[in-house]
Amino acid sequence: MAIKSFIPPVRTLMGPGPSDVHPRVLSAMARPTIGHLDPQFVLMMEEMKVMLQYAFQTKNELTIPVSAPGSAGMETCFVNLVEPGDKVIICQNGVFGGRMKENVERIGATAVMIDDPWGAAVDANKLEDALKANPDASVVAFVHAETSTGVLSDAKTLCEIAKKHDCLTIVDAVTSLGGTPLQVDEWSIDAIYSGTQKCLSCTPGLSPVSFSEQAVEKIKQRKSKVQSWFLDLNLVMGYWGSGAKRAYHHTAPINSLYGLHESLVMLQEEGIENSWARHAQNHKVLRAGIEAMGLEFIVKESDRLPQLNAVTIPSGVDDAQVRVRLLQDFNLEIGAGLGVLAGKVWRIGLMGSTSNVTNVLLCLSALDAVLTDMKAAINSGVAVKKASEVFYSSY
Amino acid sequence: MAIKSFIPPVRTLMGPGPSDVHPRVLSAMARPTIGHLDPQFVLMMEEMKVMLQYAFQTKNELTIPVSAPGSAGMETCFVNLVEPGDKVIICQNGVFGGRMKENVERIGATAVMIDDPWGAAVDANKLEDALKANPDASVVAFVHAETSTGVLSDAKTLCEIAKKHDCLTIVDAVTSLGGTPLQVDEWSIDAIYSGTQKCLSCTPGLSPVSFSEQAVEKIKQRKSKVQSWFLDLNLVMGYWGSGAKRAYHHTAPINSLYGLHESLVMLQEEGIENSWARHAQNHKVLRAGIEAMGLEFIVKESDRLPQLNAVTIPSGVDDAQVRVRLLQDFNLEIGAGLGVLAGKVWRIGLMGSTSNVTNVLLCLSALDAVLTDMKAAINSGVAVKKASEVFYSSY
Repeated sequence: MAIKSFIPPVRTLMGPGPSDVHPRVLSAMARPTIGHLDPQFVLMMEEMKVMLQYAFQTKNELTIPVSAPGSAGMETCFVNLVEPGDKVIICQNGVFGGRMKENVERIGATAVMIDDPWGAAVDANKLEDALKANPDASVVAFVHAETSTGVLSDAKTLCEIAKKHDCLTIVDAVTSLGGTPLQVDEWSIDAIYSGTQKCLSCTPGLSPVSFSEQAVEKIKQRKSKVQSWFLDLNLVMGYWGSGAKRAYHHTAPINSLYGLHESLVMLQEEGIENSWARHAQNHKVLRAGIEAMGLEFIVKESDRLPQLNAVTIPSGVDDAQVRVRLLQDFNLEIGAGLGVLAGKVWRIGLMGSTSNVTNVLLCLSALDAVLTDMKAAINSGVAVKKASEVFYSSY
Repeated sequence: MAIKSFIPPVRTLMGPGPSDVHPRVLSAMARPTIGHLDPQFVLMMEEMKVMLQYAFQTKNELTIPVSAPGSAGMETCFVNLVEPGDKVIICQNGVFGGRMKENVERIGATAVMIDDPWGAAVDANKLEDALKANPDASVVAFVHAETSTGVLSDAKTLCEIAKKHDCLTIVDAVTSLGGTPLQVDEWSIDAIYSGTQKCLSCTPGLSPVSFSEQAVEKIKQRKSKVQSWFLDLNLVMGYWGSGAKRAYHHTAPINSLYGLHESLVMLQEEGIENSWARHAQNHKVLRAGIEAMGLEFIVKESDRLPQLNAVTIPSGVDDAQVRVRLLQDFNLEIGAGLGVLAGKVWRIGLMGSTSNVTNVLLCLSALDAVLTDMKAAINSGVAVKKASEVFYSSY
């Protein structure tokens, strides 16, 4: 057999996630493993909760990382808050709304879908109408930042409407947490999940979640058991709950938690508002270059996520070939389109550590170089110039 | 707020897991993150499958790590192989059989429990009787190596009986994989799950699983959808399946997979039979010392797991106080009892990297020192002498 150690190449990660992981976080991952009930580890867990509360801008006591990736965070929210026979209104404007539907239906609940075009924000009026037409709905779910399209929806307004109709809200913040303003308490979000490998710049594998008191009350008073033992928050709370006494539920992913802890320390050092501003600023620089290249954003400016840029692929250009060349020639990863956007857009991520002006220039110049070599460039050589003008104008 | 980086203490981990993680594995965790669809990453995934097949001693194509801890591996087996209304026979002789029951019932299936005393192996005759009494059962599940008691059950015989009655088998190998003989193909195991933080000496957070062709066939032909989207193997296979084409399902925990890859490279270098022999040998050395101290194993010798030693706490000795002192004074973690054994036993793990004679001596001498200081030692000073005699007699 004789398989050797795997030594990965050093890439610049400008796809939809994972984003570049800061050396401080990588180094934290390699610290010595200790027990998942070690008193020192329990102290780390307490700090983790405080820092996640800061990231989510919430006082919610139940604010923890689920021991599995973002998809499991989504499932945690649904299986805990939805019971068989419940009705859930799902606003879909990309891939992840569809995944929410799968979650709801696998619980034996009913999903009422509100569809908006891929690339558009969720339409609040449609939600209002759907709630009027479905007074028996108990939960409203939507994606704050659609990773498949780069759209930001107005979570505050959507939650306001949902709460007016006495619904709990489940919000997907996988791509927004840390990168774009998000106020869990102020916006009355009841359940929210995210990922670590986007704007937190940690390795993938954990899903920060937060639940309001009202959500916790609902979970405690369920008529039926949560269908997933692993994700049952009634049990998970015994391990992550307050105080020194922790009951064994599952073995926590110790070293991954070290990594998340470090990335949250870094977020706290930077200040979350500064992080939001950095993501917005680097988007502006990228945008100047992208537009100078004649490429277009599929999302209108007001709904655009600064950290995830879905741009059209020039006609006649082979999507995969460009991505392969960026990877091979420049160790640069950008993302393909997902679902109905496959082959139609590239997704350029500027998330977490990745979001810096050096990477913006690298991406623009590498993309320009490849397109120029493929004789597919419009305005070859102009992208970097335009981008650097925007960069230095705000310098 | 000003929370600082978390710098964990350096412990020796001799509890029920996590075990000590080798520096090579820790160092692999810190390698640069690359994309979960990166061609280099896909090559690593292929190597991972080959090495997991070796660890499980199987040719099963569906042999992968689930992106979450062992508990999620258990759930993966149950939610994929069991449908609502099915009948599952569960052999329970410790904590984890009870967790299997929870899994089955949350699916809406029926669990028929066969109980054996905690500390005893599963009784094959009882299984045979239960299968005769329940000809409609479709699955038999049991724990190969009970982490709560340190008991090894005869998986080969139990599977033979199950197969004779046309049942699929689900086997918990969380604590056995890599530490004690396990032959998935030869024993006709249909579904098996393990953890990374035991005898593989990797960090916790992943669950290696393997499924026979018959199990995969059943999963593909299910009448109902798997109730967990995240753990639905029909979808997960699209990402881990063969060939270069991988469909996005969830974002894999990249760096944790680097760690597991490295620990499997180390297993391959050592040779799995040598690893089994090492675990057996270090158990013998520990046993000599434990018995010299007047402590007793709760499991009879023939059913004893070499890598997890459940020993009685001397009467009058405060369980928690001893463990706290071992941790504080010697940075040594041993495990508490679980469930009905809480306060009655200590669980001393000799798993993976932890399983070496240096640690055996450390554990014996530290335990002896604490008990002596607490005036609770029997034969103070004799443990190390007896253990080293056994060690040098086989030197």
